[in-house]
Amino acid sequence: MPPGQRAPVPALERLATYHRHLLDLEQESVVTISSAEMETHTGIPAAQFRKDLSYFGDFGTPGVGYVVTELRAAIDRILHVHEEQCLLLVGAGNLGAALVGYPGLMEQKFRLVAVFDNNYAKIGRQLWNLEIYDVARLKEINSVLQARIGVIAVPRQAAQEAANALVDAGVNALLNFAPATLRVPSHVMVRNVSFVQELAVLSYHVASVASVEQPSDR
Amino acid sequence: MPPGQRAPVPALERLATYHRHLLDLEQESVVTISSAEMETHTGIPAAQFRKDLSYFGDFGTPGVGYVVTELRAAIDRILHVHEEQCLLLVGAGNLGAALVGYPGLMEQKFRLVAVFDNNYAKIGRQLWNLEIYDVARLKEINSVLQARIGVIAVPRQAAQEAANALVDAGVNALLNFAPATLRVPSHVMVRNVSFVQELAVLSYHVASVASVEQPSDR
Repeated sequence: MPPGQRAPVPALERLATYHRHLLDLEQESVVTISSAEMETHTGIPAAQFRKDLSYFGDFGTPGVGYVVTELRAAIDRILHVHEEQCLLLVGAGNLGAALVGYPGLMEQKFRLVAVFDNNYAKIGRQLWNLEIYDVARLKEINSVLQARIGVIAVPRQAAQEAANALVDAGVNALLNFAPATLRVPSHVMVRNVSFVQELAVLSYHVASVASVEQPSDR
Repeated sequence: MPPGQRAPVPALERLATYHRHLLDLEQESVVTISSAEMETHTGIPAAQFRKDLSYFGDFGTPGVGYVVTELRAAIDRILHVHEEQCLLLVGAGNLGAALVGYPGLMEQKFRLVAVFDNNYAKIGRQLWNLEIYDVARLKEINSVLQARIGVIAVPRQAAQEAANALVDAGVNALLNFAPATLRVPSHVMVRNVSFVQELAVLSYHVASVASVEQPSDR
């Protein structure tokens, strides 16, 4: 990819998917993979896989395929997950606690370095091994920590305020678990994790399977 | 849409996005919305929005737009989220606890009706107001409950086994929080919630912003 140009977001999403599968394959001690096998694993067409990689360089050998460890390491560097990334968390509730305790973050070199909340009953207490700070101190604390990724795990009504505080503290990437549409400056990227929306898609599937099995008489 | 035909998954994903915004607008007592305003809110082009709706019927009035409450109710019925949907949860860890306690599920008529785990230290205890059952009893218990959606909140290594047990118990839709690729029969839909992948996309963004601000000398 030419310097200064950014990869399109859907390509990045697919890269992250390939990456996850490569990690699985490494655990299973698989040495090489073809683009056809990648299609079988991920459901993403082999041609798309080759095209996505071609943005970033030359990978793979015709007739041999891709060396799993090498390709995983290359995607590490493309996505910039080869170095530790610090995360700030706003929201020390149940979801926040689950995130702090989630082993998958550390495996991928994401490290939650500070937790913030606006509830005085929580401030000063510990969430696992992290102290919970007053969200009013976010900017001050991040002037030291210099984290660039923020995680929002607060109720809907508090989400925009949390986003504002994170952006004001120098964060330019937000992972948002709240069911709210965040308004942010153009240099900030937001990724929403909306499992209720995923459930709605599943709900449609369940209803359509049921209507085939047992035609309703509505 | 002709009877018996299923909507494409990307259209369903977008419908779920529109739905979330319509709920926000209802809370703000907004009465009507134009497709251009929907584009501003969601980032999905107005033409795409109109096309997505046209799959399912005639909505909106030229020059007036869409009545928020009516369109929200119509999408409720399309996605089949107008009736209570029962969910089974496998995994009574931190994430499972966060899900059981998550108010957003109830708001959307999703109800977690049973929790399963394979850890004998947990079986028989309560997770919030639900008893934790032995995952070996999943099929027996779901023969009574008849839930069709399963939520997987177990570690990666246990995810396929949880999926097998859920499918065997009659579930045909899976919400998977584990970082694992599940193999399921063709009638089963899987939606993966992979926030580590979302973090990888954010990580790329942070690195590309940093490289613009401060060119690296690699």
